[in-house]
Amino acid sequence: MDTSDFPARAATANTPGAWGAHLAERAARLDAADRLAPVRGLFALDERVVYLDGNSLGALPAHVPERMRDVIARQWGELGIRSWSESGWWTAPERVGDRVAPLVGAEPGTVVVADSTSVNVFKALVAAVRLAPEGRDEIVVDATTFPTDGYIAESAARLTGTRLVPVEPAEVAGRVGPRTAVALVNHVDFRTGRLHDLPGTTRAVREAGALAVWDLCHSAGALPVGLAEHGVDLAVGCTYKFLNGGPGSPAFLYVAPRHQRGFDSPLPGWNSHADPFAMAPGYAAADGAVRGRVGTPDILSLLAADAALDVWDHEAVDIPAVRAKSLALTDFFLECVAVYAPAGRVASVTPRAHAERASQVALRCAQAPAVMEALIARGVVGDLRRPDLLRFGFTPLYTRFADAERAARVLGEVLAA
Amino acid sequence: MDTSDFPARAATANTPGAWGAHLAERAARLDAADRLAPVRGLFALDERVVYLDGNSLGALPAHVPERMRDVIARQWGELGIRSWSESGWWTAPERVGDRVAPLVGAEPGTVVVADSTSVNVFKALVAAVRLAPEGRDEIVVDATTFPTDGYIAESAARLTGTRLVPVEPAEVAGRVGPRTAVALVNHVDFRTGRLHDLPGTTRAVREAGALAVWDLCHSAGALPVGLAEHGVDLAVGCTYKFLNGGPGSPAFLYVAPRHQRGFDSPLPGWNSHADPFAMAPGYAAADGAVRGRVGTPDILSLLAADAALDVWDHEAVDIPAVRAKSLALTDFFLECVAVYAPAGRVASVTPRAHAERASQVALRCAQAPAVMEALIARGVVGDLRRPDLLRFGFTPLYTRFADAERAARVLGEVLAA
Repeated sequence: MDTSDFPARAATANTPGAWGAHLAERAARLDAADRLAPVRGLFALDERVVYLDGNSLGALPAHVPERMRDVIARQWGELGIRSWSESGWWTAPERVGDRVAPLVGAEPGTVVVADSTSVNVFKALVAAVRLAPEGRDEIVVDATTFPTDGYIAESAARLTGTRLVPVEPAEVAGRVGPRTAVALVNHVDFRTGRLHDLPGTTRAVREAGALAVWDLCHSAGALPVGLAEHGVDLAVGCTYKFLNGGPGSPAFLYVAPRHQRGFDSPLPGWNSHADPFAMAPGYAAADGAVRGRVGTPDILSLLAADAALDVWDHEAVDIPAVRAKSLALTDFFLECVAVYAPAGRVASVTPRAHAERASQVALRCAQAPAVMEALIARGVVGDLRRPDLLRFGFTPLYTRFADAERAARVLGEVLAA
Repeated sequence: MDTSDFPARAATANTPGAWGAHLAERAARLDAADRLAPVRGLFALDERVVYLDGNSLGALPAHVPERMRDVIARQWGELGIRSWSESGWWTAPERVGDRVAPLVGAEPGTVVVADSTSVNVFKALVAAVRLAPEGRDEIVVDATTFPTDGYIAESAARLTGTRLVPVEPAEVAGRVGPRTAVALVNHVDFRTGRLHDLPGTTRAVREAGALAVWDLCHSAGALPVGLAEHGVDLAVGCTYKFLNGGPGSPAFLYVAPRHQRGFDSPLPGWNSHADPFAMAPGYAAADGAVRGRVGTPDILSLLAADAALDVWDHEAVDIPAVRAKSLALTDFFLECVAVYAPAGRVASVTPRAHAERASQVALRCAQAPAVMEALIARGVVGDLRRPDLLRFGFTPLYTRFADAERAARVLGEVLAA
């Protein structure tokens, strides 16, 4: 783990004085030059709060309540059952999938939005074992994974007669071999914010004859993923973090075009049938992304995510711009923490190298629970990962450099108190 | 299949005259005496339309849009991540489950609302195979099932090394034996509206040493189910039909208290962990209904269903009252159809016997697609099950006897045209 102690000038934290004024001015200049600055206006944000938890629950886009009123009152209330066709409900999972696709570098027709991330991990892993060459009996799984992926992988292994091999993400490339059916890796470590090597690991996994399945929960909407470019086999991800889809909005599943015809889902619900309304007793899988569907989509949650994706249509918004601002924000936050935090009280576990950093900063801190509680009380909302990590997510669409400066300043005050 | 042709007086359909006036008067008297009549006011209904598709998508309770505005604008928009605790989001699946439980005769703490029906069928079947005595290798499945149950059962059989045995529901009791691990039966036939014998079938399945899993999609909220009373092992059901939860609102899963400690989910996502926020690498299942959860709940869809359940708190509403009105409505509708429909043009496939009838009427009709289209154009909304069934759902909470009379009258006009 990359743990960086902050330099000694942090000792000035109790009397930020000149340094603080300098950082506040820097923040103002950076915000003034930020081409994404106008996008913040698309969100409903409490100006008294610095919201640095968009890596857990993205902020509400301001137009979503009105859109959902239409979905609920008119589409459901007035059109009723007719909305399955007239309001496009039936095809929403793949239509919304096609809006997510360009954000993760996926081909059109390869992404479906439905079910939870956990359920999609299950679909992807079982399908990957079935797609892998005969006789392979190992599922390599990220040893530092967000836990649900590991739990579900254990279940997939048990049900497919394979065994689980936990491996550190950086060692996956060297560990995969002739027995590996599939490797499941998180693109970003949910604790540290470390960005793993998707292109290199995918290449190694595929050269070993196995399939690479990526969990993009903490990278989708935050940085370039390049699913097609890097030849990823299958992927899952979340729409309620950097895509701002709302609490528990459905996750997405990517199936590379070369695997679509062979994708053999362990959850072949009627929504994935080639002719669902024939209601035939025999299952026949649909072609394309639809095959990843299971049951009736949770329309309200799904259409809130759909509405939230509108912010990506703003002329200033694209993934490279988001990535550039994300790195600038986290650089600046780390710099501010170094100035404001009393020496030795926090240590970043987030990599300094841009190539290894996603869009959050995690600080190790002895009294992390009490510190986070105090931060939230003072209007700086991050979150906690037990036992000792303060986690701050930076969503470039609505987070300002001034927010980063204020968060670090308040953190310094809390730590000094 | 119980096919009842209507009697010859249907020949009066083109000149309903006295018969029609008589039926309209009867409807008015029945509505005036209906203790559930005031409940209709709790729903947002287009008075120009007779909505007989509540067995597919329940009507919108009038207070839901405002409730969802609060969920979206305040809980998500203002409280953000804090709503997982402060707005009760995290515990909503089991809290809403405890509201569904009494409607299906389940014990408190046995029902969780999460994921789609299909996903819950998968959890229930794989868990049931694991709960069944060693060595049993058959999954008996309703041969007339709603198709997704059959598709998912096929997948569960494949993954658990069991085999699928399709059996007509009425024959399940006689077919289960020492090789049966589990029997999955629909409480109601989605095509004909036939109500199957849950108490007797459950008894026979359990006497054979197997587990009974019921799909309650078309009975929950429409009639007494008595899960605890009849000793059902596991059950799944839908919240968007007679429970009016909104399009694709999450389904529910029931696990009998005696099975909760042994319930071994094939989808052990982090939400079902005993200490999810420990984010521990090893899985340890939570106790109780929570064990049926998987990933992050789709809060918007779930809380719309929660809000919709408020109508069951109305003083006039309980399941016996709903059942009584449902039977009276479908009796009356069948009577009206017999009067208004030209002879020989439609035949009911819904049983006449109350003990065998759920809350819909299905009419076989030669030009069913065109007839349903014409009905909808004239403001009578039912639906179609290919190739030749007109399906009319009766939701006693908001359907009036006058609606039944009008629907039958318009059907007669369409058939005569």
